[in-house]
Amino acid sequence: MEAKIITIGDELLIGQVIDSNSAWLGAELEAINIRVTEIRSIQDTEDEIIKHLSELTGKTDVIILTGGLGPTKDDVTKKALANFLGVELEFNASILEQLTALFKRINIEVKESHKTQAYVPAGCAILSNKMGTAQGMWMEHNGSIIISMPGVPYEMKYIMENGGLEKLAALNNGNRIFHKTIMTAGWGETMIEEKILPIIDALPPHIKVAYLPGLGNVRIRVSSKSENDDSELTATVDQICNSLGNIVYGFDNIRLEEAIGAILLEQKLTLGTAESCTGGNVARMITSIAGSSAYYKGSIVSYANEIKTDLLGVQSKTLEDHGAVSKETVTEMVQGALRKLDVDVAIATSGIAGPGGGTPEKPVGTIWIAVGSADKVITHKLNLTKNRNKNITYTSIAALNMLRKFLVGQ
Amino acid sequence: MEAKIITIGDELLIGQVIDSNSAWLGAELEAINIRVTEIRSIQDTEDEIIKHLSELTGKTDVIILTGGLGPTKDDVTKKALANFLGVELEFNASILEQLTALFKRINIEVKESHKTQAYVPAGCAILSNKMGTAQGMWMEHNGSIIISMPGVPYEMKYIMENGGLEKLAALNNGNRIFHKTIMTAGWGETMIEEKILPIIDALPPHIKVAYLPGLGNVRIRVSSKSENDDSELTATVDQICNSLGNIVYGFDNIRLEEAIGAILLEQKLTLGTAESCTGGNVARMITSIAGSSAYYKGSIVSYANEIKTDLLGVQSKTLEDHGAVSKETVTEMVQGALRKLDVDVAIATSGIAGPGGGTPEKPVGTIWIAVGSADKVITHKLNLTKNRNKNITYTSIAALNMLRKFLVGQ
Repeated sequence: MEAKIITIGDELLIGQVIDSNSAWLGAELEAINIRVTEIRSIQDTEDEIIKHLSELTGKTDVIILTGGLGPTKDDVTKKALANFLGVELEFNASILEQLTALFKRINIEVKESHKTQAYVPAGCAILSNKMGTAQGMWMEHNGSIIISMPGVPYEMKYIMENGGLEKLAALNNGNRIFHKTIMTAGWGETMIEEKILPIIDALPPHIKVAYLPGLGNVRIRVSSKSENDDSELTATVDQICNSLGNIVYGFDNIRLEEAIGAILLEQKLTLGTAESCTGGNVARMITSIAGSSAYYKGSIVSYANEIKTDLLGVQSKTLEDHGAVSKETVTEMVQGALRKLDVDVAIATSGIAGPGGGTPEKPVGTIWIAVGSADKVITHKLNLTKNRNKNITYTSIAALNMLRKFLVGQ
Repeated sequence: MEAKIITIGDELLIGQVIDSNSAWLGAELEAINIRVTEIRSIQDTEDEIIKHLSELTGKTDVIILTGGLGPTKDDVTKKALANFLGVELEFNASILEQLTALFKRINIEVKESHKTQAYVPAGCAILSNKMGTAQGMWMEHNGSIIISMPGVPYEMKYIMENGGLEKLAALNNGNRIFHKTIMTAGWGETMIEEKILPIIDALPPHIKVAYLPGLGNVRIRVSSKSENDDSELTATVDQICNSLGNIVYGFDNIRLEEAIGAILLEQKLTLGTAESCTGGNVARMITSIAGSSAYYKGSIVSYANEIKTDLLGVQSKTLEDHGAVSKETVTEMVQGALRKLDVDVAIATSGIAGPGGGTPEKPVGTIWIAVGSADKVITHKLNLTKNRNKNITYTSIAALNMLRKFLVGQ
């Protein structure tokens, strides 16, 4: 089955909001064997919504709309849908009941504008939304299923996860696309392709390989169409992994910080961090993983030099002789973190994230990373760009990848 | 002038990559008075690219394509463009020269696959890319300008910022759209609309107001079409701000952490943080702002209870009597941060981010925040969801907003 997504809202077009709904929907639909073949972000006027519905309805199995369902005046999706389907907006008593109950629980009075949320195109089925006031709507027209949901990501996700996906999956059967993503860190796209080109060149046409480069990592997506099982896919993935060796850290969008968590749990080690230029970003990445408190104890974000000396025990002389951005300082930061946070392994970062603050000897983008345990500390110098956010992100990933290799003994 | 964006790549459709390019382009084009009226994400096959080019060319002033220009086999945009335009791919010696020079500088050998990057559709103008190997291309067909760029965000941005935007701006003139975004934190969309409805209802049709709700904040976008100046826009924005009072913290996508930085600089105060459940995210937000080292000294991320006692000086008895997630603990965390980091004001967070770890008395989503100085500490309890990432983000924003109000004395 095929789906097309329409996200509605001028805020998407003039760059005030990044459309993250489509990617989430794309991944979830793929998992139930519905392939998204197009995403459109369009203006929030009735005319535009009707125009795009007309263009796509009848040409695809499923059309998913998000956005334009709020209680405020700039939200016109429901009106557009009713016009397109040639039906009226109809009052739905059970929506108002649910809404009244919700508002009572959180002690908010139901206002007139909220009541408009209880009107839906006649004949549509409701997909319940307990995270907000706009319900999901399921309609059928000209051979296509049309689903309309609010644009707020957690409301849209709630609707899909609590009925929408299940209802869609029930419609689907037959030929399947299998895919697996190989996660790598440390090499660029060209180096990877050169290494695995003999494997790629020998693949039959129904097996496809794509490279998805990110900052400091490359994902390799392998897809295989089959009526049967995923044995061909598995064999290809194994071949590629064997060829690439230790740059592969996991599969299927597992994050580096998640892979590291699993290694730390397995090795029964605790981790701490001492961050200067990454300013807490390494800690944030590690603690974004549920259950990280089992191995992560904390961080000393030593943005100011006094914090480096007072809390991490970096020698003033080290800072004077070598500067805060140096091999010597990050080494002492790791040692300080091991001691002060009482952990088995630690990461330290110090650098000039930019865009200002560089010198001829240490230009913007000069960054030192250290990783180590009581026995051994290793360091690495990066020469990055003038882009602050890119430098922080890249450094965090490089530091985590250094830790991964340190832990698995490479 | 109008533009439409086409982003190319299966990875966008199956949710492996979020399309952030379109939002950036939308905002940059809007600033030079080119309104993006549609964004499409499409499959990376020649047929699909040609189909969508055919549908849109001639109907809009500018079409911007990103993606599918890598040196690897799955990149087909250039071939599709040449076919669509009815021209050959032509070798461009100056591209290869630039590429060779770039590779020499970073000590990488030029490979066969890199050389394919020097072939471009005959007759196209080159938009230089010094961040990667795929050049930007500028073509004209059937009354539309077609610009094709790589999908890697920093390469695309480099091309636009170093030639692309300037070349587009030169084509444009006449009627202008002015807009300003009012940034608020603390109220929901419905409360805001109710408050400013009398103002909105009295506006002429060429002035539009839209609400962009986020986690813990709502942006209010005001747009006005005019041949002359932005005086009408300014008057409307002033009216709205006066009506909303202290929930307005700034304008035009300024982030809360940036607004707080400005206040701290003005009041000559230093800031430190003590984070438990937010795990470094507050520190990361603050340090994402260039120049934050002028007022931010650091953080103690006390994920483990020992760090709370050993490094922040929280009393063991407080943890025993009230638990880590309590008013008493966050109060002592703020006091510890003020003392240990030697700062004027501090933020502390402690809570159960989830999805596991709740108890009947303190369910997942129970979070305490404290903000204070040596004279005064204020606390606030949040009852949030079971969604870990949402809880972390919302708590961080709520904590920063508490600090903002604390600083401006509200």
